[in-house]
Amino acid sequence: MSLDGAYNPDNIFAKILRGEIPSARVYEDHAVLAFMDVFPQSRGHTLVVLKEHPARNLLDVEPQPLQHLILGVQRVAKAVRAALRPDGLVIKQFNGAPAGQTVFHLHFHIIPVWEGAEEGPHASGQMADAAQLAELAKAIAAQIS
Amino acid sequence: MSLDGAYNPDNIFAKILRGEIPSARVYEDHAVLAFMDVFPQSRGHTLVVLKEHPARNLLDVEPQPLQHLILGVQRVAKAVRAALRPDGLVIKQFNGAPAGQTVFHLHFHIIPVWEGAEEGPHASGQMADAAQLAELAKAIAAQIS
Repeated sequence: MSLDGAYNPDNIFAKILRGEIPSARVYEDHAVLAFMDVFPQSRGHTLVVLKEHPARNLLDVEPQPLQHLILGVQRVAKAVRAALRPDGLVIKQFNGAPAGQTVFHLHFHIIPVWEGAEEGPHASGQMADAAQLAELAKAIAAQIS
Repeated sequence: MSLDGAYNPDNIFAKILRGEIPSARVYEDHAVLAFMDVFPQSRGHTLVVLKEHPARNLLDVEPQPLQHLILGVQRVAKAVRAALRPDGLVIKQFNGAPAGQTVFHLHFHIIPVWEGAEEGPHASGQMADAAQLAELAKAIAAQIS
Protein backbone atom coordinates (compact mmCIF):
# COMPACT_ATOMS: atom_id res chain seq x y z
CA MET A 1 0.00 0.00 0.00
CA SER A 2 1.31 3.40 -1.02
CA LEU A 3 1.98 6.25 1.37
CA ASP A 4 -0.95 8.12 -0.16
CA GLY A 5 -4.60 7.23 0.10
CA ALA A 6 -7.56 7.26 2.39
CA TYR A 7 -7.86 5.83 5.89
CA ASN A 8 -9.80 2.54 5.91
CA PRO A 9 -12.10 2.43 8.98
CA ASP A 10 -12.21 -1.38 8.83
CA ASN A 11 -8.54 -1.95 9.59
CA ILE A 12 -7.84 -4.27 12.51
CA PHE A 13 -6.83 -1.52 14.94
CA ALA A 14 -10.04 0.38 14.24
CA LYS A 15 -11.91 -2.84 15.07
CA ILE A 16 -9.93 -3.20 18.30
CA LEU A 17 -10.78 0.40 19.19
CA ARG A 18 -14.46 -0.29 18.58
CA GLY A 19 -14.26 -3.44 20.69
CA GLU A 20 -15.13 -5.69 17.75
CA ILE A 21 -11.86 -7.60 18.18
CA PRO A 22 -10.40 -8.39 21.61
CA SER A 23 -7.00 -7.11 22.68
CA ALA A 24 -4.83 -7.27 25.78
CA ARG A 25 -5.21 -3.65 26.85
CA VAL A 26 -2.39 -1.94 28.70
CA TYR A 27 -3.38 1.70 28.89
CA GLU A 28 -6.07 4.08 27.72
CA ASP A 29 -6.61 7.81 28.05
CA HIS A 30 -8.61 10.40 26.11
CA ALA A 31 -6.20 10.23 23.18
CA VAL A 32 -4.53 6.83 22.97
CA LEU A 33 -4.96 3.11 23.48
CA ALA A 34 -2.08 0.72 24.14
CA PHE A 35 -2.34 -3.04 23.81
CA MET A 36 -0.08 -6.05 23.35
CA ASP A 37 1.07 -6.96 19.83
CA VAL A 38 -0.34 -10.41 19.01
CA PHE A 39 2.77 -11.17 16.95
CA PRO A 40 5.35 -10.01 19.49
CA GLN A 41 8.92 -9.51 18.32
CA SER A 42 9.96 -9.90 21.94
CA ARG A 43 8.27 -10.43 25.30
CA GLY A 44 6.34 -7.28 26.16
CA HIS A 45 6.01 -5.91 22.60
CA THR A 46 3.33 -3.24 22.96
CA LEU A 47 1.52 -1.01 20.45
CA VAL A 48 0.20 2.50 20.98
CA VAL A 49 -2.50 3.94 18.70
CA LEU A 50 -4.62 7.06 18.49
CA LYS A 51 -8.28 6.64 19.38
CA GLU A 52 -9.60 9.64 17.46
CA HIS A 53 -8.19 11.53 14.49
CA PRO A 54 -7.51 8.38 12.52
CA ALA A 55 -4.44 8.64 10.36
CA ARG A 56 -2.69 6.02 8.28
CA ASN A 57 0.82 7.07 9.12
CA LEU A 58 3.17 9.72 10.45
CA LEU A 59 2.82 11.76 7.29
CA ASP A 60 -0.94 12.31 7.43
CA VAL A 61 -1.56 12.73 11.16
CA GLU A 62 -2.42 16.18 12.51
CA PRO A 63 0.21 17.75 14.79
CA GLN A 64 -1.81 17.80 18.03
CA PRO A 65 -2.91 14.15 17.95
CA LEU A 66 0.68 13.22 17.12
CA GLN A 67 1.83 15.06 20.22
CA HIS A 68 -0.70 13.17 22.33
CA LEU A 69 0.41 9.93 20.76
CA ILE A 70 4.10 10.36 21.53
CA LEU A 71 3.31 11.16 25.16
CA GLY A 72 1.33 7.93 25.30
CA VAL A 73 4.28 6.08 23.80
CA GLN A 74 6.58 7.52 26.44
CA ARG A 75 4.20 6.70 29.28
CA VAL A 76 3.74 3.12 28.16
CA ALA A 77 7.46 2.65 27.40
CA LYS A 78 8.28 3.68 30.97
CA ALA A 79 5.75 1.17 32.28
CA VAL A 80 7.10 -1.61 30.03
CA ARG A 81 10.52 -0.89 31.37
CA ALA A 82 9.38 -0.83 35.00
CA ALA A 83 7.38 -4.05 34.63
CA LEU A 84 9.82 -6.16 32.63
CA ARG A 85 13.27 -4.60 33.25
CA PRO A 86 14.60 -5.12 29.73
CA ASP A 87 18.16 -4.05 28.89
CA GLY A 88 16.86 -1.67 26.24
CA LEU A 89 13.80 -0.56 24.30
CA VAL A 90 13.37 0.00 20.59
CA ILE A 91 10.66 2.31 19.29
CA LYS A 92 9.60 1.72 15.68
CA GLN A 93 7.00 3.26 13.45
CA PHE A 94 6.47 2.04 9.88
CA ASN A 95 5.08 4.09 7.01
CA GLY A 96 3.94 2.25 3.89
CA ALA A 97 3.91 -1.48 3.14
CA PRO A 98 7.45 -1.46 1.67
CA ALA A 99 8.64 -0.12 5.03
CA GLY A 100 6.98 -3.00 6.87
CA GLN A 101 3.65 -1.42 7.77
CA THR A 102 0.92 -4.06 7.90
CA VAL A 103 -1.94 -2.17 9.59
CA PHE A 104 -2.72 1.21 8.07
CA HIS A 105 -3.71 2.95 11.27
CA LEU A 106 -0.81 4.99 12.67
CA HIS A 107 0.90 3.11 15.49
CA PHE A 108 4.16 3.01 17.40
CA HIS A 109 5.85 -0.23 18.44
CA ILE A 110 7.53 -0.50 21.84
CA ILE A 111 9.88 -3.48 21.67
CA PRO A 112 11.82 -4.56 24.77
CA VAL A 113 15.34 -5.84 24.13
CA TRP A 114 17.36 -8.25 26.25
CA GLU A 115 21.07 -8.66 25.75
CA GLY A 116 21.83 -11.84 23.84
CA ALA A 117 18.24 -12.35 22.67
CA GLU A 118 17.39 -12.03 18.98
CA GLU A 119 14.48 -9.80 18.01
CA GLY A 120 11.80 -11.88 16.30
CA PRO A 121 10.31 -11.14 12.87
CA HIS A 122 7.76 -8.34 12.44
CA ALA A 123 4.06 -9.14 12.10
CA SER A 124 4.63 -12.83 11.53
CA GLY A 125 5.83 -15.91 13.37
CA GLN A 126 3.61 -17.53 15.95
CA MET A 127 0.62 -15.71 17.40
CA ALA A 128 1.12 -15.19 21.11
CA ASP A 129 -0.92 -17.02 23.71
CA ALA A 130 -3.82 -14.78 24.76
CA ALA A 131 -3.47 -15.64 28.44
CA GLN A 132 0.23 -14.74 28.40
CA LEU A 133 -0.51 -11.44 26.69
CA ALA A 134 -3.21 -10.67 29.26
CA GLU A 135 -0.71 -11.34 32.04
CA LEU A 136 1.91 -9.08 30.46
CA ALA A 137 -0.69 -6.37 29.88
CA LYS A 138 -1.68 -6.53 33.53
CA ALA A 139 1.94 -6.32 34.71
CA ILE A 140 2.64 -3.32 32.47
CA ALA A 141 -0.64 -1.60 33.34
CA ALA A 142 0.27 -1.85 37.03
CA GLN A 143 3.36 0.29 36.34
CA ILE A 144 1.65 3.12 34.47
CA SER A 145 2.24 6.39 36.27
CA MET B 1 25.34 1.71 28.53
CA SER B 2 22.39 1.18 30.82
CA LEU B 3 19.08 2.98 30.51
CA ASP B 4 19.88 4.87 33.69
CA GLY B 5 22.58 7.46 34.19
CA ALA B 6 23.51 11.03 33.50
CA TYR B 7 23.58 12.86 30.18
CA ASN B 8 27.13 13.29 28.89
CA PRO B 9 27.52 16.76 27.33
CA ASP B 10 30.47 15.57 25.23
CA ASN B 11 28.52 13.10 23.11
CA ILE B 12 28.90 13.55 19.37
CA PHE B 13 25.45 15.09 18.83
CA ALA B 14 26.11 17.67 21.54
CA LYS B 15 29.32 18.54 19.67
CA ILE B 16 27.38 18.83 16.41
CA LEU B 17 24.87 21.12 18.14
CA ARG B 18 27.71 23.29 19.42
CA GLY B 19 29.25 23.37 15.95
CA GLU B 20 32.40 21.60 17.08
CA ILE B 21 31.80 18.81 14.57
CA PRO B 22 30.43 19.47 11.08
CA SER B 23 27.15 17.98 9.90
CA ALA B 24 24.99 18.11 6.79
CA ARG B 25 22.14 20.17 8.25
CA VAL B 26 18.64 19.69 6.93
CA TYR B 27 16.40 21.68 9.26
CA GLU B 28 16.57 23.75 12.40
CA ASP B 29 14.00 25.53 14.54
CA HIS B 30 13.87 26.70 18.15
CA ALA B 31 13.58 23.13 19.41
CA VAL B 32 15.23 20.70 17.02
CA LEU B 33 18.09 20.15 14.61
CA ALA B 34 17.97 17.63 11.77
CA PHE B 35 21.05 16.43 9.90
CA MET B 36 22.16 13.53 7.71
CA ASP B 37 23.34 10.33 9.42
CA VAL B 38 26.99 9.81 8.48
CA PHE B 39 26.46 6.03 8.54
CA PRO B 40 23.27 5.96 6.47
CA GLN B 41 21.23 2.77 6.43
CA SER B 42 19.73 4.00 3.18
CA ARG B 43 19.97 7.04 0.93
CA GLY B 44 18.45 9.99 2.80
CA HIS B 45 18.78 8.59 6.34
CA THR B 46 18.22 11.65 8.53
CA LEU B 47 18.43 12.23 12.29
CA VAL B 48 16.39 14.64 14.39
CA VAL B 49 17.62 15.77 17.82
CA LEU B 50 16.58 18.22 20.51
CA LYS B 51 18.71 21.34 20.83
CA GLU B 52 17.87 22.14 24.43
CA HIS B 53 16.64 19.94 27.28
CA PRO B 54 19.27 17.29 26.67
CA ALA B 55 18.02 13.80 27.39
CA ARG B 56 19.64 10.46 26.80
CA ASN B 57 16.57 8.66 25.62
CA LEU B 58 12.78 8.53 25.40
CA LEU B 59 12.51 7.58 29.07
CA ASP B 60 14.21 10.63 30.52
CA VAL B 61 13.03 13.42 28.22
CA GLU B 62 10.50 15.94 29.51
CA PRO B 63 7.05 15.81 27.87
CA GLN B 64 7.10 19.23 26.19
CA PRO B 65 10.48 18.86 24.49
CA LEU B 66 9.41 15.39 23.35
CA GLN B 67 6.32 16.92 21.76
CA HIS B 68 8.49 19.45 19.94
CA LEU B 69 10.80 16.69 18.82
CA ILE B 70 8.09 14.52 17.29
CA LEU B 71 6.74 17.49 15.33
CA GLY B 72 10.26 18.04 14.00
CA VAL B 73 10.43 14.36 13.04
CA GLN B 74 7.15 14.64 11.18
CA ARG B 75 8.19 17.83 9.39
CA VAL B 76 11.50 16.38 8.27
CA ALA B 77 9.95 13.01 7.32
CA LYS B 78 7.53 14.82 5.03
CA ALA B 79 10.43 16.68 3.43
CA VAL B 80 12.48 13.48 3.00
CA ARG B 81 9.52 11.94 1.28
CA ALA B 82 8.92 14.93 -0.98
CA ALA B 83 12.60 15.19 -1.92
CA LEU B 84 13.44 11.53 -2.50
CA ARG B 85 10.07 9.82 -3.17
CA PRO B 86 10.87 6.59 -1.33
CA ASP B 87 8.31 3.76 -1.25
CA GLY B 88 8.17 3.94 2.52
CA LEU B 89 9.75 5.44 5.63
CA VAL B 90 10.81 3.77 8.84
CA ILE B 91 11.08 5.76 12.06
CA LYS B 92 13.33 4.26 14.75
CA GLN B 93 14.42 5.38 18.15
CA PHE B 94 16.81 3.31 20.26
CA ASN B 95 17.03 3.31 24.05
CA GLY B 96 20.11 1.75 25.63
CA ALA B 97 23.15 0.15 24.03
CA PRO B 98 21.58 -3.34 23.96
CA ALA B 99 18.78 -1.84 21.85
CA GLY B 100 21.28 -0.43 19.35
CA GLN B 101 21.71 3.09 20.72
CA THR B 102 25.22 4.37 20.00
CA VAL B 103 24.90 8.09 20.80
CA PHE B 104 23.34 8.84 24.17
CA HIS B 105 21.54 12.01 23.14
CA LEU B 106 17.88 11.30 22.34
CA HIS B 107 17.37 11.09 18.58
CA PHE B 108 14.92 9.75 16.03
CA HIS B 109 16.01 8.07 12.80
CA ILE B 110 14.13 8.72 9.56
CA ILE B 111 15.06 5.91 7.17
CA PRO B 112 13.72 5.94 3.60
CA VAL B 113 12.87 2.53 2.14
CA TRP B 114 12.80 1.52 -1.49
CA GLU B 115 11.15 -1.68 -2.59
CA GLY B 116 13.73 -4.38 -3.28
CA ALA B 117 16.56 -2.54 -1.51
CA GLU B 118 18.01 -3.96 1.69
CA GLU B 119 18.36 -1.65 4.68
CA GLY B 120 22.01 -1.30 5.62
CA PRO B 121 23.46 -1.95 9.08
CA HIS B 122 22.99 0.57 11.87
CA ALA B 123 25.84 2.89 12.91
CA SER B 124 28.43 0.96 10.97
CA GLY B 125 29.42 0.17 7.41
CA GLN B 126 31.05 2.82 5.29
CA MET B 127 30.95 6.48 6.25
CA ALA B 128 29.03 8.44 3.65
CA ASP B 129 30.72 10.91 1.33
CA ALA B 130 30.36 14.39 2.83
CA ALA B 131 29.58 16.01 -0.53
CA GLN B 132 26.80 13.51 -1.20
CA LEU B 133 25.32 14.10 2.23
CA ALA B 134 25.44 17.85 1.69
CA GLU B 135 23.58 17.41 -1.59
CA LEU B 136 20.91 15.25 0.03
CA ALA B 137 20.57 17.71 2.91
CA LYS B 138 20.04 20.52 0.43
CA ALA B 139 17.41 18.58 -1.51
CA ILE B 140 15.51 17.69 1.66
CA ALA B 141 15.81 21.19 3.12
CA ALA B 142 14.26 22.59 -0.05
CA GLN B 143 11.10 20.57 0.67
CA ILE B 144 10.60 21.65 4.29
CA SER B 145 7.21 23.29 4.68
